[in-house]
Amino acid sequence: MTARINHQWQLAARPVGLIKESDYQWAEVEIPELEDGQVLVRTQYLSLDPANRGWVREGGSYMAPVDIGSVMPAGGIGTVEESRNPNFQAGDLVQGMFGWQEYLVSSGAGLNKLPQVGLPPTAFLGLFGHIGLTAYFGLLDIGQPKEGETLVVSTAAGAVGSIVGQIGKIKGCRVVGITGSEEKCRWIVDELGFDAAINYKTEDVYDALKQHCPDGIDIYFENVGGNILDAVLAQLNNFARIPLCGLISTYNATGPTPGPYNFVNLLTRRVRLQGFIVLDYMPRAQEAIADLTQWYMQGKLKFRVDVIEGLKEAPRAVNKLFEGSNQGKLVLKVSN
Amino acid sequence: MTARINHQWQLAARPVGLIKESDYQWAEVEIPELEDGQVLVRTQYLSLDPANRGWVREGGSYMAPVDIGSVMPAGGIGTVEESRNPNFQAGDLVQGMFGWQEYLVSSGAGLNKLPQVGLPPTAFLGLFGHIGLTAYFGLLDIGQPKEGETLVVSTAAGAVGSIVGQIGKIKGCRVVGITGSEEKCRWIVDELGFDAAINYKTEDVYDALKQHCPDGIDIYFENVGGNILDAVLAQLNNFARIPLCGLISTYNATGPTPGPYNFVNLLTRRVRLQGFIVLDYMPRAQEAIADLTQWYMQGKLKFRVDVIEGLKEAPRAVNKLFEGSNQGKLVLKVSN
Repeated sequence: MTARINHQWQLAARPVGLIKESDYQWAEVEIPELEDGQVLVRTQYLSLDPANRGWVREGGSYMAPVDIGSVMPAGGIGTVEESRNPNFQAGDLVQGMFGWQEYLVSSGAGLNKLPQVGLPPTAFLGLFGHIGLTAYFGLLDIGQPKEGETLVVSTAAGAVGSIVGQIGKIKGCRVVGITGSEEKCRWIVDELGFDAAINYKTEDVYDALKQHCPDGIDIYFENVGGNILDAVLAQLNNFARIPLCGLISTYNATGPTPGPYNFVNLLTRRVRLQGFIVLDYMPRAQEAIADLTQWYMQGKLKFRVDVIEGLKEAPRAVNKLFEGSNQGKLVLKVSN
Repeated sequence: MTARINHQWQLAARPVGLIKESDYQWAEVEIPELEDGQVLVRTQYLSLDPANRGWVREGGSYMAPVDIGSVMPAGGIGTVEESRNPNFQAGDLVQGMFGWQEYLVSSGAGLNKLPQVGLPPTAFLGLFGHIGLTAYFGLLDIGQPKEGETLVVSTAAGAVGSIVGQIGKIKGCRVVGITGSEEKCRWIVDELGFDAAINYKTEDVYDALKQHCPDGIDIYFENVGGNILDAVLAQLNNFARIPLCGLISTYNATGPTPGPYNFVNLLTRRVRLQGFIVLDYMPRAQEAIADLTQWYMQGKLKFRVDVIEGLKEAPRAVNKLFEGSNQGKLVLKVSN
């Protein structure tokens, strides 16, 4: 039997600022024969997320930093090609932590078989995966929206933001999204039903919030940090809630980044700000899936997937998240 | 009848940086004859609190800023001298919003008669007043201490901080206090029972926290902001809680003050940070008073009052809070 080859991107250097292709090394390794209990999975789709940048940061983020020389981790979906594990058989569609590589050899731990429910596989990297759960628990558990309240969402045309805004509408909020192009503004208002959109690249965010949030802001679903956070803090109502999901404006910083200048408003306006990571909510995933499925079936939730083709594109593709050039959930298609 | 004279401090200018005596004007006004329903109260003690600085800030804090020309507001305790209100009679000891003045003419609204329970009147400006309630609800409601957790308190020898630490001990926490002199360090450890104290003026706070919090920090009762907040954020455990009670290091700032540089740790460590103002907890005051009284009777809670004599001292005395030269609750004695 000829040796089977696996291509993978290994971390070559800690990125400084935006990820560069030279921070990774394209490697060709041989796939070993499976041992008892192992499965071989062919990668079909990989999830690209802002959190990836934190994983390779010196000092790590919510987990230890990826070691130099290791395969870059990434959530993914693929098909079992060969199995010596009784829980899996060839042809099973599975989800788990795959990494930027064509094949994964796994003990099966952390691999989940996906249900055959007529959804495209990428749905499980988006609305019915960590993205939908992030939006659902961040908004409902921490944001606690009440009918008639005003919800502001940053990165509103992104994977998480676009779902947060739609759930906000389902819960009866006035929803204002902040995003970075006229096209994205039109999409979230015309197709997703947001009440208003702000283009932070062409508008003064403070003034635009003043206009679109005449009753102040009760919930701010935070994905960016920086000036946008300060503009929101200045207009929060008393007892506002801030689910702190991401701070994408700071992830590529090469030096210390100050927190918001209006930090004192968290005190004077009695704000609750709470950081969260979707992994903490996994034990409650079924709650979210049940609601998300129902809303999706009722046509109340739409989602969009932005597909980049080819594993070789991974280091370049992940930067789309920081440039704001993706729309909806960014995924990398590795094989059919 | 000769006219009765009231001396008062009126706000003359918005302070820039520390309060200056010239920001206030010493005024002599005539006390009018009482109308039906009014009471005349002689001020005995006034409460001096860090929040006072926010009240005179351009733009206000949690309430509209004090108008130029108005008497400087302050909580106080005094004795009813004359009453044309059936709910009060001469000799009653009352508490309410008095202002920096010798006499108060009031409709009685917001004036509370104090119980005769053998406590010195100043206890009602401290442990059994807004100070005790701030410590109690901030720590228990927001901090949610669990036995064996590590609690760090800033301004630990101040009015609120000194009570927070003692309640932390009652709840079974390891308690580390941060304060600004060797004498205050000794007081909180030797007399109040804190496990350790850090002198931020002579020690590196980050290193000292590392030493005294070997299991990380679960709760940070925040009164100061600035570098100390950053040192704590760097050592928080996952799912830590931060009751945000004050940011005294920023109250006299004359320009924009950045938030903490380690702000991102609120996200990666899933921290809950919540601002609060004791006024919001007034409907639940009896809960706190019941526990605080019991702990005080059991000898588990001590408090100290730092008394400055003379209304004329008010503008100078309030700065003791920002210089860190008070120990325990700062009050101004206006009359016997």
